[in-house]
Amino acid sequence: MWYVSSRRAVTQSAPEQGNFPPHHLTHHHRHHRPHPHLRHHARPHHLHHQEAGLHTAQVTPCMCPLFSCQWEGHLEVVVPHLRQMHRVDILQGAEIVFLATDMHLPAPADWIIMHSCLGHHFLLVLRKQERHEGHPQFFATMMLIGTPTQADCFTYRLELNRNHRRLKWEATPRSVLECVDSVITDGDCLVLNTSLAQLFSDNGSLAIGIAITATEVCSSEAEM
Amino acid sequence: MWYVSSRRAVTQSAPEQGNFPPHHLTHHHRHHRPHPHLRHHARPHHLHHQEAGLHTAQVTPCMCPLFSCQWEGHLEVVVPHLRQMHRVDILQGAEIVFLATDMHLPAPADWIIMHSCLGHHFLLVLRKQERHEGHPQFFATMMLIGTPTQADCFTYRLELNRNHRRLKWEATPRSVLECVDSVITDGDCLVLNTSLAQLFSDNGSLAIGIAITATEVCSSEAEM
Repeated sequence: MWYVSSRRAVTQSAPEQGNFPPHHLTHHHRHHRPHPHLRHHARPHHLHHQEAGLHTAQVTPCMCPLFSCQWEGHLEVVVPHLRQMHRVDILQGAEIVFLATDMHLPAPADWIIMHSCLGHHFLLVLRKQERHEGHPQFFATMMLIGTPTQADCFTYRLELNRNHRRLKWEATPRSVLECVDSVITDGDCLVLNTSLAQLFSDNGSLAIGIAITATEVCSSEAEM
Repeated sequence: MWYVSSRRAVTQSAPEQGNFPPHHLTHHHRHHRPHPHLRHHARPHHLHHQEAGLHTAQVTPCMCPLFSCQWEGHLEVVVPHLRQMHRVDILQGAEIVFLATDMHLPAPADWIIMHSCLGHHFLLVLRKQERHEGHPQFFATMMLIGTPTQADCFTYRLELNRNHRRLKWEATPRSVLECVDSVITDGDCLVLNTSLAQLFSDNGSLAIGIAITATEVCSSEAEM
């Protein structure tokens, strides 16, 4: 087990809220998974009930949420790990647009971006995977870099909009303490077959609108 | 070729607008397809450009949009055909909720409802189909019982909402003069795998919120 803690002050600088333009456009951060079956999580899929009393996120050990990485560390250093080891960009603002390029490249592949808003960091994972041979699909989900209890305070929305078609998916983010692989295997995320992905793509690039909101019950807590 | 024209005055009675409660709840109209490969459409998938000048809907010959039916007739008698031969219900109002029951039943199967609003009849087709063996999927689309030119004047929205998840699909309806099978084969519709369908189902029933709006360019024409 090892930590990446250098430059932590920079990557975890104060979260920006409110004063940013509503849409930031970024290019993809594509993440290849050369060994798709190397990593297995022994953790149960749903941790909510088992650790409902857990509020000390800072001492929670976890694994890197990316598929091919064997890193383990504490929750508080996941963000610097993702930034420095995986060069994952961070976008600021309540609503952003993430542009995933080269959607035609073969599965398996991940596109990754971090999203900083409402005092937290979120991780968007867009995965291209063949669950049925010869028929790749795209799966998109948002994870909170925080505990399941914290994640329950938010709603995320992913939106595709092109060619007179619009597809919106809204759900509660999962915690990175849960396994992104199981979220995708369960199909509890935005799912696109190749036809839909092509309809929403422009020249091989897919623009995903992302918005995070705090649920009413937790909004006062999230603003703290 | 034969027509069903009796009771036409009843089924094509003046479309109701505005004064209805916003949500009507109905139960499914399930349509079995015993001979899934009996019917083949020779018509091209996209008729928009070829018949842009076509405004005389009343003399347009077409086939029954349901899969297993060999009926052919004129566009103006599709609604009475669907009502009388297939017992398809008509729901009124700009926003309705359609409840498809027995979602667990094996593919292939169709759930069908007609939706009357803004002076037109629309047909919702929810199809359960195995495009990959052993992995049934659900496909939902809305067809206008009218020409492609008329269809271009509308936007339909299908919405699923349950378990803190929401999925919305918005698109321009296709005309029943196009082939519903090709729309589904192209995947240009709301697509649900079994996992998502289960997440959005309650006790085997899937509630689909349906809304139709007139696009701005055509709204004055549609209100005529």
